[in-house]
Amino acid sequence: MTAPTTTALESTKAAELLGLLARDLAPDRLATDPRTVAAHATDRSGARSDGSPLAVVHARRTEDVTVTLRHAHGLGVPVVPRGAGTGLSGGATAGEGVLVLDLSGMNRVLELSADDQLAVVEPGVITAELDRAAGAHGLRYAPDPASAAISTIGGNIATNAGGLRCAKYGVTRDSVLGLEAVLADGTVIRTGRRTVKGVTGYDLTALLTGSEGTLAVITSATLRLRPVPMATATLAAYFPSFEAAAEASYAIGRAGIEPALAELVDGPVLHAIDPELRERGAALLVVQCDGAGASVEAEVVARLLTPLATTVEVTDDPAEAESLLAARRLALPALERLGRPLIEDIAVPRSRLAEAARSIRAISERHGVPIFTIAHAADGNLHPIIVVDPALERLPDAAWEAAGEIFALALRLGGTLTGEHGVGVLKRQWVAEELGPSAHALQRRLKEAFDPLGILNPGKSL
Amino acid sequence: MTAPTTTALESTKAAELLGLLARDLAPDRLATDPRTVAAHATDRSGARSDGSPLAVVHARRTEDVTVTLRHAHGLGVPVVPRGAGTGLSGGATAGEGVLVLDLSGMNRVLELSADDQLAVVEPGVITAELDRAAGAHGLRYAPDPASAAISTIGGNIATNAGGLRCAKYGVTRDSVLGLEAVLADGTVIRTGRRTVKGVTGYDLTALLTGSEGTLAVITSATLRLRPVPMATATLAAYFPSFEAAAEASYAIGRAGIEPALAELVDGPVLHAIDPELRERGAALLVVQCDGAGASVEAEVVARLLTPLATTVEVTDDPAEAESLLAARRLALPALERLGRPLIEDIAVPRSRLAEAARSIRAISERHGVPIFTIAHAADGNLHPIIVVDPALERLPDAAWEAAGEIFALALRLGGTLTGEHGVGVLKRQWVAEELGPSAHALQRRLKEAFDPLGILNPGKSL
Repeated sequence: MTAPTTTALESTKAAELLGLLARDLAPDRLATDPRTVAAHATDRSGARSDGSPLAVVHARRTEDVTVTLRHAHGLGVPVVPRGAGTGLSGGATAGEGVLVLDLSGMNRVLELSADDQLAVVEPGVITAELDRAAGAHGLRYAPDPASAAISTIGGNIATNAGGLRCAKYGVTRDSVLGLEAVLADGTVIRTGRRTVKGVTGYDLTALLTGSEGTLAVITSATLRLRPVPMATATLAAYFPSFEAAAEASYAIGRAGIEPALAELVDGPVLHAIDPELRERGAALLVVQCDGAGASVEAEVVARLLTPLATTVEVTDDPAEAESLLAARRLALPALERLGRPLIEDIAVPRSRLAEAARSIRAISERHGVPIFTIAHAADGNLHPIIVVDPALERLPDAAWEAAGEIFALALRLGGTLTGEHGVGVLKRQWVAEELGPSAHALQRRLKEAFDPLGILNPGKSL
Repeated sequence: MTAPTTTALESTKAAELLGLLARDLAPDRLATDPRTVAAHATDRSGARSDGSPLAVVHARRTEDVTVTLRHAHGLGVPVVPRGAGTGLSGGATAGEGVLVLDLSGMNRVLELSADDQLAVVEPGVITAELDRAAGAHGLRYAPDPASAAISTIGGNIATNAGGLRCAKYGVTRDSVLGLEAVLADGTVIRTGRRTVKGVTGYDLTALLTGSEGTLAVITSATLRLRPVPMATATLAAYFPSFEAAAEASYAIGRAGIEPALAELVDGPVLHAIDPELRERGAALLVVQCDGAGASVEAEVVARLLTPLATTVEVTDDPAEAESLLAARRLALPALERLGRPLIEDIAVPRSRLAEAARSIRAISERHGVPIFTIAHAADGNLHPIIVVDPALERLPDAAWEAAGEIFALALRLGGTLTGEHGVGVLKRQWVAEELGPSAHALQRRLKEAFDPLGILNPGKSL
């Protein structure tokens, strides 16, 4: 008798796994029909793996996750956890022979404590919905990724998502107090606590946050909520150049103001939204100050911006603020009308923002690739967006090379490949360079300590 | 020929290690004289391990650390890293056969960037000195443990130290952007970056923060600085009971105010400081609001406290503020006059503060052990302080039992054994209960991934 080929062995395993899952999960949890499976094979990045996943488990309870992982682990079958599939780096792509574990149906807010300013939620809760639920108690969930209306808390934690307000309120990690998670072998662990402080043991909560589903599957999260600020003041200023707008953002920092958000939009983006906006200036900076001192801070900011800007508008009216922020919010839809946007996500020390933008322009010109840039100025987090022809089968070499140069630029300036979107599959080839060989090797050992068989989201992140 | 006994083998190894260190380190780095060694065998907790350490390495450069660890690792000799030795949990105690690695001489501020609002420092920098250096640029280092004048940044990071201002500005972890650290085998790694955001790879920076010297030795830290607030307003209010003061702190949170600090001092502590203070009330709450809205917030706070308090004082004058804060600052010296204070450090969800204090009083009465309580109210972090007769050789059983009940209380309320001081040796026996068996086992696997021979600060933390 000869040994079965790898492929034959794998398909035996796959059949066995599906049998066990069909036996141990409620009937509505397991989907194997090609349409459902295909719909769960990629995310918003559009990246695709070869082949088709085995099946999709629609988890509704932690037990669904433990059963799924226990069986997958026993048979060594890879598992790709996913939320709403809004990731931009391909972290949820699933190819041949992989089981997809869909957490979007675990979407209950389990607890909301106004007194302790925290919520306990399942991973499939939509971020904006948590924020809304908190709002009923005068609280809010501070992290506000641009995808908040469609992305899930679990996905936000998996990528340590940022957003606009993290200029002042920190990234997702800063709002995660504790987690329930299931390890690769089906063991349930609890990390962190219900308190803001706590130093018993290593910080597994922070380690899981941003781990892109490669260390464990998050089944519930205890999240910090914060009071809705007493007041908010919004400014929008147009500048003769991106550099001038960047300089203005430095001046805000130097004056000791910590704005709630500081968003930069470059001229090509303004033009894509509305050519009339582009006529107002070559760059737009929108700043929001909040809290009891919002109007005092906004006055200082207005005074700082005025000598540098073409025009400055200030408002404390929410509707007017929304219209000032509109240009920023319309950026992506506008670029989507031009083609397929590849949204990069580098971060640099914030004093290098102007330098980064200048270099990105040079990269764009050198490769003949249009690059549009928006930035979270207070964080030094730039989104250079390469727009390519959607009809193309694969990314043109020039776009790929431009992206590579943008990453190299970020590292040269002391920054990072990804400020808030994660590595996924799209940025993997540059990870080792950022981490350095020793830290990279150590990270692989950590992965092994969590998931010795390597079944959790293989080929992602590291 | 028979195998050498363990002890003989160990003393051979020790001699070999000292020989290698004498060969490879500059002469002023290695100390073996009994006085120096004895002075580096414990920390401010007063806890002691049996026997005497081998020697002390006074590191001045990263290379001193790599050389020391490489040789210690090669020979399997345990190493206890330490800063200023101000820890309260025994994290830096060193006993028989152990090499002490003293980082206090690595005390340079390597860089201070006002534009990027960050500093790069060696681990031996005294926390208050960094804060002072930042002050010259209108910035500050936000974390302010009570020990800031005597403790080091490295020690603060090792314990993820808290402080008063972390009510608003977070714990040490929230100010650490990146680290250089040396692994047990002498490999240098760099974690994190110079940017506020960044999600490439697992968050080793957070993992090392609070790891109490058991995972790696920190040789430099990139720290976030923040602007000195535009204004500060301080309130001090006396209350008829600790519960009333706790209720007042809840009211502040419910009103959506995030104070920069909210410190609670109970009646017995007030009495220990000055019996006259105790006559003003059974508890003191000191609140500080800062930022552009400080005075607006302080007005709201005063309005909330007035109906609950006996007296309320408000000031925006720094000298007066200092005198209002004095009672809080005098608490520990006052208790030290009464005996040897054992400072516990539990944290509970902040709405359980009153309940925790009530239970601590009951524990005190049941065991006939005087317990004095101060608390960081906004964090739910209580320091119940058991004062024992300093003449006693060992802790009385009643004190030990009372401490055990305090830890059990913290866990029952959904809190933690230690909010900001660390586990060290003193709280180790309760760690497994807080973490649960699966997370505890996982943490041990992480320790092995970093330090397979277990030479770094053995017997601490986990």
